[in-house]
Amino acid sequence: MDNSQALAACGPFSSAERDAVYRAIYTRRDTRSQFSPEPVPDEVLARILLAGHHAPSVGFMQPWNFVVLRSLATRRKVQALFREANEEAAAMFPAERQASYRALKLEGIVEAPVNLCITCDPDRAGPVVLGRTHDKAMDSYSTVCAVQNIWLAARAEGIGVGWVSIIDPAKLRAMLGIPDRVIPIAYLCLGYVHEAYVRPELEVKGWRRRLPPEDVLNFEGWGQAGANEPLLALMRQGMEDGPVRPSPCGMS
Amino acid sequence: MDNSQALAACGPFSSAERDAVYRAIYTRRDTRSQFSPEPVPDEVLARILLAGHHAPSVGFMQPWNFVVLRSLATRRKVQALFREANEEAAAMFPAERQASYRALKLEGIVEAPVNLCITCDPDRAGPVVLGRTHDKAMDSYSTVCAVQNIWLAARAEGIGVGWVSIIDPAKLRAMLGIPDRVIPIAYLCLGYVHEAYVRPELEVKGWRRRLPPEDVLNFEGWGQAGANEPLLALMRQGMEDGPVRPSPCGMS
Repeated sequence: MDNSQALAACGPFSSAERDAVYRAIYTRRDTRSQFSPEPVPDEVLARILLAGHHAPSVGFMQPWNFVVLRSLATRRKVQALFREANEEAAAMFPAERQASYRALKLEGIVEAPVNLCITCDPDRAGPVVLGRTHDKAMDSYSTVCAVQNIWLAARAEGIGVGWVSIIDPAKLRAMLGIPDRVIPIAYLCLGYVHEAYVRPELEVKGWRRRLPPEDVLNFEGWGQAGANEPLLALMRQGMEDGPVRPSPCGMS
Repeated sequence: MDNSQALAACGPFSSAERDAVYRAIYTRRDTRSQFSPEPVPDEVLARILLAGHHAPSVGFMQPWNFVVLRSLATRRKVQALFREANEEAAAMFPAERQASYRALKLEGIVEAPVNLCITCDPDRAGPVVLGRTHDKAMDSYSTVCAVQNIWLAARAEGIGVGWVSIIDPAKLRAMLGIPDRVIPIAYLCLGYVHEAYVRPELEVKGWRRRLPPEDVLNFEGWGQAGANEPLLALMRQGMEDGPVRPSPCGMS
């Protein structure tokens, strides 16, 4: 192949385009209760799935599969798996947190017209995969990159996504006939939304707060040696202002 | 809290905004050789890191840390770790693939002015985490969502990102002083790029091809029962046309 045609000039987005990317990132929510029953057209679902299929993957292995579930009967069975797991989950919390845990609505499996199980096939590119040789989890991580692409593309399409992780993966695998070698990574609920939380629902409901930047930022190594105060100050300011402050929804 | 203020009207993006999100998704590349040495200003790095910090996370635990590395001495030491691992990796491939493996440039650790080690702290929110009760990997997956947000935000800023996974994670942890409980998830190289591959570099160089949609799509369960031909056809068409076909780079 002529590599001179493989490269193209490349630069930053226009500020309007850049703001749109940040808007998707900042207004993306984990949706559980706001799904509209209106169907998601195949044209829209195809765009969202292709966004997932164009995620980065280790050694270009593309280990993902997208299992599209529209059948109400199947979604009801998955919801039963969620309920079983959620009872087990509630019992694991300290006594004083169980009531607030049980008060949260954590899934919209039946309300959302499209469910999507995204899996990782470790055998997709043979036993030795470029880039997976020193971290066996790299194929799962690639699959999660596809999930995040799907989540952001869906946001741009006006479609909310909820990730339901309170399900026994082995039982889900058996129910959907997924081979033993294949790992269910994410179970997503998708549907149009007409309103959304401005901040994460778990923050609004007092479960946990957003961490300040000094809790997540390190410089030149773990011990904060050579702390970069200007960068920290900019991040603090960005969190106060919102680095991009579009109306969270609505047309701009 | 007054929940009536917590929700806001919500809809699809304008078509220009939507195209910008898809443009970021489709023109994002794993960058190894195109880094410019020009420094990345703190203002830009702060926006990119905040995009990571606004990723979804299981139980809103925000398990990530972002270790910013600019020191050339540290980056040279990390590059030595890469070289050691890459020799081991090359030897794992079948004899007939070793030459083409060795011909690939797989990192830009020293050329990229900013490196970023993104880690996952499983203890960030106590032993029982909402949503992690039935899949222990959910905290790592949340961290990968932060990586993908960073990758897309960087693309919008004109900054290329390369994910270097061919490093022994235990040696990287020791070098950066990361506590034993904390998992290094991604080691990223960041820098401005002025040209980029139109298609993934591993595809251009003949390592692997993009899979057709029928290889990654399933309906109502693993066995393709109830195959949705219209959706498959739309995905095939989208892959031929490119669902969004902006100039891959350059100002729009």
